[in-house]
Amino acid sequence: MKESGRKLGALSPCAACKLLRRRCAQDCVFAPYFPADEPQKFASVHKVFGASNVNKMLQELPEHQRSDAVSSMVYEANARVRDPVYGCVGAISSLQKQIDSLQTQLALAQAEVVHMRVRQFTSSSNPGAMDMAVDQVTMGESLWSC
Amino acid sequence: MKESGRKLGALSPCAACKLLRRRCAQDCVFAPYFPADEPQKFASVHKVFGASNVNKMLQELPEHQRSDAVSSMVYEANARVRDPVYGCVGAISSLQKQIDSLQTQLALAQAEVVHMRVRQFTSSSNPGAMDMAVDQVTMGESLWSC
Repeated sequence: MKESGRKLGALSPCAACKLLRRRCAQDCVFAPYFPADEPQKFASVHKVFGASNVNKMLQELPEHQRSDAVSSMVYEANARVRDPVYGCVGAISSLQKQIDSLQTQLALAQAEVVHMRVRQFTSSSNPGAMDMAVDQVTMGESLWSC
Repeated sequence: MKESGRKLGALSPCAACKLLRRRCAQDCVFAPYFPADEPQKFASVHKVFGASNVNKMLQELPEHQRSDAVSSMVYEANARVRDPVYGCVGAISSLQKQIDSLQTQLALAQAEVVHMRVRQFTSSSNPGAMDMAVDQVTMGESLWSC
């Protein structure tokens, strides 16, 4: 990947070196992940994390993890540029609210299933109906949570 | 809040100025949010975002939003220190998987409700039973999604 990155950028510096106005060396740590034709990617991480920190964070990782690290840093940086107060923590908070709402809806639906089973069993005057209905829903829950 | 921050730090520099080995001025932008007795908070944001970027991001915000911005930056920085590859984007990905799983469970539970209603109505040989059962579940869905 590094090789292809360098080939692409052989005649021009990578987006990072271009922004930092420095010579793009053959072994530039940024070049494989910040190609010259995507200048916004580096601009965001530079604004939020700083070039020196991004450099340090990449150097501390093995090469096969650097591409994922860059993607997650670009995601985080873009979120912070869009929302300078909460950044991607805003997304976490919103996803957690969505989970709370889904858990409530699921509990209601499961309660409805229990209610209908109990009504169904009791209407057929089956002794032990309540226990059987609850047992079935418990089995259903373990099935759903797989 | 700024005032109380300065009072607490009047005799000693705030955690940021202590780490940066600089004089903690009366109007230090870090002091209200990085008290001397919580050095780890600043150490994390310094490592991930850099002191200069944190300073700039705080200066660009009105004072009443700075405390939330610091909290979200500390959260993000701690996540990146724990997981240098994915940072808090790892949490976002895991929450999204949880949402997918809950949506599947909810769809199954709602399908079970439809199935039971249809069976209940058809067993009582009610004409138009299927439509009524589906209508009731549609009403239930809009109730659950409130």
